[in-house]
Amino acid sequence: MGRYSVKVFITYKKGVLDPQGVAVEKAAHQLGFKKVKNVRVGKLITMEVEAKSKEEVEREIKEMAEKFLVNPVIEDYSYEISKEG
Amino acid sequence: MGRYSVKVFITYKKGVLDPQGVAVEKAAHQLGFKKVKNVRVGKLITMEVEAKSKEEVEREIKEMAEKFLVNPVIEDYSYEISKEG
Repeated sequence: MGRYSVKVFITYKKGVLDPQGVAVEKAAHQLGFKKVKNVRVGKLITMEVEAKSKEEVEREIKEMAEKFLVNPVIEDYSYEISKEG
Repeated sequence: MGRYSVKVFITYKKGVLDPQGVAVEKAAHQLGFKKVKNVRVGKLITMEVEAKSKEEVEREIKEMAEKFLVNPVIEDYSYEISKEG
């Protein structure tokens, strides 16, 4: 068994309204950061997974994403897996 | 002027309680993903920045992080900058 470090990146799909992103962009402009645009706020979920192989981790991550981490109607996701120790 | 795509990764510092991470971990265990641990939920902020150089983007990002994106008492951050087009 190995220990794997996983990062899951969850972002809103294009076209989905992101009020938090709009708020951050407004704040940026008001504070003088005028050249910033298309701000979107997504999620970064990090975790550790015990598994026999990277492929097993990948299967688990995909299953978790589909079952409860990601809302496929409005969100996209990607992930990175790296072995630890 | 060039257009740069920026990702800012914001995570809770070690030792800071992360209730959303705890909730996701509990859900994972209840749904049969027993080998998952240390789940933490952070933020992924993406944006586009117009600038003369990558260094200029870097300066802007650091300034934004310090001014309003990140709470340095409880959060850490890192970033990635890539040129577009």
